[in-house]
Amino acid sequence: MAASAGPEIERLISLLSKLPGLGPRSARRAALALLKRRDQLLGPLADALADAAAKVKTCGVCGSLDTQDPCAICADDHRDGALICVVEEVGALWAMERASAFRGRYHVLGGLLSALDGVGPEALRVSGLVNRATDGAVREVILALPATVDGQTTAHYLADRLAQADVSVTMLARGVPVGGELDWLDDGTIAQAMRARRPA
Amino acid sequence: MAASAGPEIERLISLLSKLPGLGPRSARRAALALLKRRDQLLGPLADALADAAAKVKTCGVCGSLDTQDPCAICADDHRDGALICVVEEVGALWAMERASAFRGRYHVLGGLLSALDGVGPEALRVSGLVNRATDGAVREVILALPATVDGQTTAHYLADRLAQADVSVTMLARGVPVGGELDWLDDGTIAQAMRARRPA
Repeated sequence: MAASAGPEIERLISLLSKLPGLGPRSARRAALALLKRRDQLLGPLADALADAAAKVKTCGVCGSLDTQDPCAICADDHRDGALICVVEEVGALWAMERASAFRGRYHVLGGLLSALDGVGPEALRVSGLVNRATDGAVREVILALPATVDGQTTAHYLADRLAQADVSVTMLARGVPVGGELDWLDDGTIAQAMRARRPA
Repeated sequence: MAASAGPEIERLISLLSKLPGLGPRSARRAALALLKRRDQLLGPLADALADAAAKVKTCGVCGSLDTQDPCAICADDHRDGALICVVEEVGALWAMERASAFRGRYHVLGGLLSALDGVGPEALRVSGLVNRATDGAVREVILALPATVDGQTTAHYLADRLAQADVSVTMLARGVPVGGELDWLDDGTIAQAMRARRPA
């Protein structure tokens, strides 16, 4: 890719191109940007990566990523331990936190059930969730899973598994997103928003 | 951005978001991908960055990046030292090398003259180019600069500065790019391709 630029640069570009959102061309641009800004960018990023590799771990309770285990959210006494919000991945947990719409705790499944990709319940953090839901302190489990086929399959499966526990199992509402023009929405969203209509 | 995920992850995301092509959202996705694939991606990338920071330097002759100085191209005796191809940045040098259309040596200006951005000749590797062009061994200087206002201003300036040297100064041809449909080309390109037409 960067012929004659030496194996170090080649290797840097090839690793950068494995990041989501970076193809070979943008990986080359990123490598050049890094090499041009060594003190402000390349050095700090190398340190940040080494730091993250050394310190960030998976929370033994909820499966999130943090430098402490249990993570800051699981260890926070001001969080409502009676509510568990189930998410697919840490990215979804971060999105929920940015929305500041939830003050309970989380459970990161680590994926979704998928017949196509051969992902079964044993590949996800399902039994940990059932254990937490049955420990007596939990009142509600909110399934904040994507509105896709795999997301809904997983939600149905989890609702079944949690039926034995003495908790209410809920899901995020479906409807018109903020700023959503009806013209541009798919039929499924419009139909769901219509079915779930409520007093204005 | 990743509330409660600890300062290490915040810092990693903030540094990743400074790479060209990565915004805050894709930086978060990249950070998660790195943290999920520690042994295959995070560790190797940290090493590759540290390695590049330690070993990659700017070639004292042409201004390219390599682990050796002079760079592999300047040090390669099989390259034609009578031809110098002037490029704006190392990215353009890599693009020329990928095209395998040139077997001479390079000169990386490190930018373009820009009245708007206040970039003058002293900010670029111009005097180094003039020195190389006047050392007697060089026969032709090819200005492979972008077909933009700044690119053309810089090309004219360099042609002036090189007039005193006993070299021919040339530019890349302008015309219809490979695969280019006339329908989709801008008028300037069509006009230049028409003026520079040649026997079929």
